Amino acid sequence: MPTISKKGRDMPSSPIRKLVPYAEQAIEKGRKIYYLNIGQPDIRTPEIALEAVKNNDIEILSYSRSEGSETYRKKLAQYYSKHAIHVTYKDIVVTTGASEALLFLFSSIMDPEDEVIISEPFYANYIAFSKASGVNIIPAVCNIDDNFALPSIETFEKLITPKTKAILICNPGNPTGCLYTEDDIKKLAAIAIKHDLFLVADEVYREFVYDGHKHFSILQAEGIDQHAVVIDSVSKRYSMCGARIGCLVSKNKTVMQTVLKFAQARLSPPTYAQIASEAALDTPQSYFDDVIKEYVERRNTLISELQKIDKLKVALPQGAFYCIVELPVKNTDDFAQWLLEHFEVDNETIMVAPAEGFYSTPGIGVNQIRIAYVLDKESLIKAVHILKEALKVYKD
Amino acid sequence: MPTISKKGRDMPSSPIRKLVPYAEQAIEKGRKIYYLNIGQPDIRTPEIALEAVKNNDIEILSYSRSEGSETYRKKLAQYYSKHAIHVTYKDIVVTTGASEALLFLFSSIMDPEDEVIISEPFYANYIAFSKASGVNIIPAVCNIDDNFALPSIETFEKLITPKTKAILICNPGNPTGCLYTEDDIKKLAAIAIKHDLFLVADEVYREFVYDGHKHFSILQAEGIDQHAVVIDSVSKRYSMCGARIGCLVSKNKTVMQTVLKFAQARLSPPTYAQIASEAALDTPQSYFDDVIKEYVERRNTLISELQKIDKLKVALPQGAFYCIVELPVKNTDDFAQWLLEHFEVDNETIMVAPAEGFYSTPGIGVNQIRIAYVLDKESLIKAVHILKEALKVYKD
Repeated sequence: MPTISKKGRDMPSSPIRKLVPYAEQAIEKGRKIYYLNIGQPDIRTPEIALEAVKNNDIEILSYSRSEGSETYRKKLAQYYSKHAIHVTYKDIVVTTGASEALLFLFSSIMDPEDEVIISEPFYANYIAFSKASGVNIIPAVCNIDDNFALPSIETFEKLITPKTKAILICNPGNPTGCLYTEDDIKKLAAIAIKHDLFLVADEVYREFVYDGHKHFSILQAEGIDQHAVVIDSVSKRYSMCGARIGCLVSKNKTVMQTVLKFAQARLSPPTYAQIASEAALDTPQSYFDDVIKEYVERRNTLISELQKIDKLKVALPQGAFYCIVELPVKNTDDFAQWLLEHFEVDNETIMVAPAEGFYSTPGIGVNQIRIAYVLDKESLIKAVHILKEALKVYKD
Repeated sequence: MPTISKKGRDMPSSPIRKLVPYAEQAIEKGRKIYYLNIGQPDIRTPEIALEAVKNNDIEILSYSRSEGSETYRKKLAQYYSKHAIHVTYKDIVVTTGASEALLFLFSSIMDPEDEVIISEPFYANYIAFSKASGVNIIPAVCNIDDNFALPSIETFEKLITPKTKAILICNPGNPTGCLYTEDDIKKLAAIAIKHDLFLVADEVYREFVYDGHKHFSILQAEGIDQHAVVIDSVSKRYSMCGARIGCLVSKNKTVMQTVLKFAQARLSPPTYAQIASEAALDTPQSYFDDVIKEYVERRNTLISELQKIDKLKVALPQGAFYCIVELPVKNTDDFAQWLLEHFEVDNETIMVAPAEGFYSTPGIGVNQIRIAYVLDKESLIKAVHILKEALKVYKD
């Protein structure tokens, strides 16, 4: 039998995936599960986007342009302008989700064995994209005790080697909910310029910023045009995860021309999803106001309920819809499985994401979980109650 | 300014792309262009697929499963059964087009510097996927003079080295229109088994087989289960290129589990497109009968018109909707550009695909073009007339 590749063997499984069979068994037993483990919002997709697809008049479902349809890119440029990000449609390549944008970018700016510095904990699939590209992640470790604040310039500079090609952040952060300030971004921009690195920001949660804070994009920093690449997506912004539309934004023409070559090889992003995404740009501000209000209430509910639990630490999220929680258990992988296999309160249990998959530093995060507050407040209260009761009886 | 990667620099541009500005200039001059250069059929997408999307009742456009929706995969397994390919839905991973299927497979079975033998000329983007994966293509050269028949077993065996991991064919072939026989497939299967290689077949044109021939899938060959991987797509079958839905089919569980890890990293294939693709499986046979009849007529028209041109060679296609044509010119890159820039008959011209991009062997194919017969007969007749007149006056 022919063998698979080393790359394929090294590719990580989704950290949540191994819990799925246990969740399925729990469901078979008639148990209700509160899913705190994935960032699939329960928020309705804007009507305007859904209607645009229903009312499409396509007769031949043709390829779109490899860089995405021009009308969509032009409207996207207007969207960015409203957020004080001044780009034209020529600075945008539409991709099949932020995932593809990251893959194209990794391949465009890094060769195998090159290094990317990422503030840790980070979105688990960054590991997968790195493995797929043969690139090494160098983690800039953040700490739950200071709310996962950006590491100091000195910390970053110590991590830079001749192989370093880029610094990657997610802002606001998945899985931390941490929001980097304008000052943070300017610091990172200065490092990128000084050491001639790319600064890549995954800004898919741009709108999800709370407590009166304002999001500051890397593309707003001065002098960074040739270094900055923004990764974006409609998935969370409009609760359209299934569309699979993202984009890359950069004023660096060499990067964009290279990205386009990868985009041409896969022909085009999906057409129906571009129709939905273009229409979604006309979503009224009231939709976002309602959604943000809802997330703030959920976050406040979740955090205040969690803080009632003994020996539990939680970092206060200021954006996105995740938080990292440190539990008084040795290994949250085992704990998460046990919750599904052996625990219930009134025949209900919870599914959480063990945080180890969000770290590349061995050993860190094994007692942490990520909670996505994508459920309504009542469900969150019940879910945290289940967690509290579980911790009372769980034995490592 | 930070530099891009070697991989990015090495990535080929789409061979047609460089002609696009010249086509745009021709259009600006008010010139009509017959597009013979791309495989974008003018055939209507089946109504049943279009309607399914219009009538969708999605309220939250959520992620689907990474391996594709279960209902779609189950119906796909039935489709394969009807084609004497006996697989279950567990042998199928749905991808974002055949492009993604090839990328996932290349990464799953080959590491950088590994080799894949491909019968040449081949679909140009195989080069892009190889570059993206760091894999080397070893071409098994086919010849226009014997209608691009499969090279002999001896030819293949001479090309096999310790680094060879797979043999890749496209059947029926893009860009040749060549259909491999049952005997050809069994020969390839024997080589794959003997040398412990994967046999990969891009069978996206399965239905487009003419003159009473029958398509024989590699999955129908005996003893090949652990070696065979089929790449498939809805793009051409249902004239749904913009859907971006393909799949990988294999009974090799290790391969499929590895592919799934890459699939998980990009979360899911597009949801709307899966709705269209699932519905398309109910397309009535009469649709295909009509389409095949249309393509046969177009092919016959095209070939008989081409054969009237002096010093021109054309291989007779038995499947797909392409043919390779050898022209009495030195370089078809220059010729294709000249057609757009400087030639017209009654203010009309043609756009053709220079064939060099379908070869990895340097120097072969420079006097060939690929013609896609995706236009109606009347247009094809006019287009070949323009080609004929152009060849009378063109000077190398």
